[in-house]
Amino acid sequence: MTISSDDRLRITYRLALTEHGDPAAAAEDIALEQSVELPGRCLESDAERIMVGRVEHVARGEGEWSQAVISFPGALIGTDLLQLLNVIFGNISLKRGMLVTAVELPGFMVGGTWGPRFGIAGVRNMLGVEPRTPLLCAALKPVGLRPDEVARRCYEFAAAGVHIVKDDHGFTDQVTAGFRERVERCLDAVERANRAHDEHSIYFPNVTGSISELPERLEFLRAAGCRGVLLSPLLVGLDTVRSISDQAHFAILAHPAMAGAYFGATHGIRPDVLLGTIFRLAGSDGVIYPNVGGRFALSADDCTGINHRLREPLSAVRPAFPVPGGGIAVERVPEWVRRYGPDTIFLIGASLYDQPDVGRAARELVMALTRGAMAAPE
Amino acid sequence: MTISSDDRLRITYRLALTEHGDPAAAAEDIALEQSVELPGRCLESDAERIMVGRVEHVARGEGEWSQAVISFPGALIGTDLLQLLNVIFGNISLKRGMLVTAVELPGFMVGGTWGPRFGIAGVRNMLGVEPRTPLLCAALKPVGLRPDEVARRCYEFAAAGVHIVKDDHGFTDQVTAGFRERVERCLDAVERANRAHDEHSIYFPNVTGSISELPERLEFLRAAGCRGVLLSPLLVGLDTVRSISDQAHFAILAHPAMAGAYFGATHGIRPDVLLGTIFRLAGSDGVIYPNVGGRFALSADDCTGINHRLREPLSAVRPAFPVPGGGIAVERVPEWVRRYGPDTIFLIGASLYDQPDVGRAARELVMALTRGAMAAPE
Repeated sequence: MTISSDDRLRITYRLALTEHGDPAAAAEDIALEQSVELPGRCLESDAERIMVGRVEHVARGEGEWSQAVISFPGALIGTDLLQLLNVIFGNISLKRGMLVTAVELPGFMVGGTWGPRFGIAGVRNMLGVEPRTPLLCAALKPVGLRPDEVARRCYEFAAAGVHIVKDDHGFTDQVTAGFRERVERCLDAVERANRAHDEHSIYFPNVTGSISELPERLEFLRAAGCRGVLLSPLLVGLDTVRSISDQAHFAILAHPAMAGAYFGATHGIRPDVLLGTIFRLAGSDGVIYPNVGGRFALSADDCTGINHRLREPLSAVRPAFPVPGGGIAVERVPEWVRRYGPDTIFLIGASLYDQPDVGRAARELVMALTRGAMAAPE
Repeated sequence: MTISSDDRLRITYRLALTEHGDPAAAAEDIALEQSVELPGRCLESDAERIMVGRVEHVARGEGEWSQAVISFPGALIGTDLLQLLNVIFGNISLKRGMLVTAVELPGFMVGGTWGPRFGIAGVRNMLGVEPRTPLLCAALKPVGLRPDEVARRCYEFAAAGVHIVKDDHGFTDQVTAGFRERVERCLDAVERANRAHDEHSIYFPNVTGSISELPERLEFLRAAGCRGVLLSPLLVGLDTVRSISDQAHFAILAHPAMAGAYFGATHGIRPDVLLGTIFRLAGSDGVIYPNVGGRFALSADDCTGINHRLREPLSAVRPAFPVPGGGIAVERVPEWVRRYGPDTIFLIGASLYDQPDVGRAARELVMALTRGAMAAPE
């Protein structure tokens, strides 16, 4: 791989004025801290300066923050996804008042090495759902059920035409429902439901868990004909997701567990950058996030921002599905489809379990989504 | 493994009053959200309730926060470290005003499955440094140097008697100093320095990077006689650290990259819990953190808190070294040894590079530390 000197990563930071009265000094500090970890005066030769970040732009804000754009040489990162994360926020996470609001990647990083293996078109193809129809995903709950009980719910959702049936991300290898037995039963349930009701549902088991057992579990899933998995990237590690994606055996649904730690108002990584850009680069074909108005803290702008980052053109990196969870009642489906567009997987979790007849409620949602598609903007 | 119903994980949260005017309701919400992810009214049977968290205690605070203690069944977690993290903070990371201040583990989790393979005694033994003498660690900088230049610095530190010489955590596999060549040259440099100066230094290369290449890199290191590695747990994933620790080939030095994202004043995981308890459970033999008074944001209490968590009795889990970085000038060494005690690895980074003669400055530090040991409290 050749990296030219123009191949630079550009990161935009918001600097809180309360912490950084001199934004130019703060920007210079980030440029050094995130590369050589030395003060400029300690760098003696050109070789010692070759990797240093460069302050491209600083604008003192009128409100409570300033903005700084800092670029780093592509050679500092290469194609190491973890080093990309490290350069974006590793050491400065331990400072204050620094918020990552945008990441612009050099050409060689977005040349197809990273990103989803299936993406929006690939997942549609896998599920047999044509373009312009939004998708529905349901979650199997609650942890504590036995495998046969989980499988029964799985059947019910698949029979109702729910496109993706996923484990709750808290299902691991509990004594109540061990990984293998749960997965075998659920795969079987979905297959039976698909045959009986002429559907094409896919079951996504959660494989987040012991790294030592992960290769064996993935091999087991591959042999069993499983085609998608659920992963929590901030638990298993983003490069573990990338390495699973790279094998191209499974579509990957990413869960945002732990992500909120990064969503400080004045310090962290903005939701669209973390769940949009970064999760997409790690190979997620769909990214779950808590929809505005539900029981979590994301704003309407955060949600549309995530959608945008997952779908925006990014060289050879495929677009990924946003998977907003929560707030998807039947009567509001047309509104959500209008707001988010048809290239969305709507995740219905707890609210489905609040219905007297879960299967019927699921079918009504599938029908509302299909109808809703007609109201979607071109 | 048998898990009795008394084997419960207990977590203490601070709830910000600005966000949670009804702390009992917020505690109940955590108990459900972090286990079954369903409202209580949706749980129909005992089987559905078996994994639910239990609010043990809520105290309305007099200041700006309340305190809640919530326990979760051990069977919800088993011995899955990532599920432990998930239960502690996974989904609620996406809420606001919830701060994890303590984690109390059931017996079966601290029975020796988790935690450092070497710990304080094992690392001392490896380095030939007797009890009650503090240790010194120096960082190789800056990224951008060629392997021979990095190795020259490595030699200088080892010859000065620095106990541990580690890569800066930004050294990955850059074109300027590829992983294998850098490691080979540094291992060789340390060996030569040890022979020439009768020292026992150990070089800890950074192995944070591509998960696909990790097994091969570790095997290469093992074959080359390398005995310790540097890892950033929040980049590679905490269970990747555990799985490397479990093989017991390498002592593990953990770097706090990204950890600051969790250190919000009102929302997150307190530094002592994340860098102390959790990093220790993941198998870190030493945990680097930014010392108070340096260029980062931890307080004096945070630092002593981390030290305490790393060394406190925790059933069969070995104690680990705190590795404070920054602020370690020669004249202040006795003060730091008095404050932190001798079971500490003092990390000297940037400030060493500010000296005209780096090797001599390093030797003075080693001598000050050895002398400082005599002033340490019993």
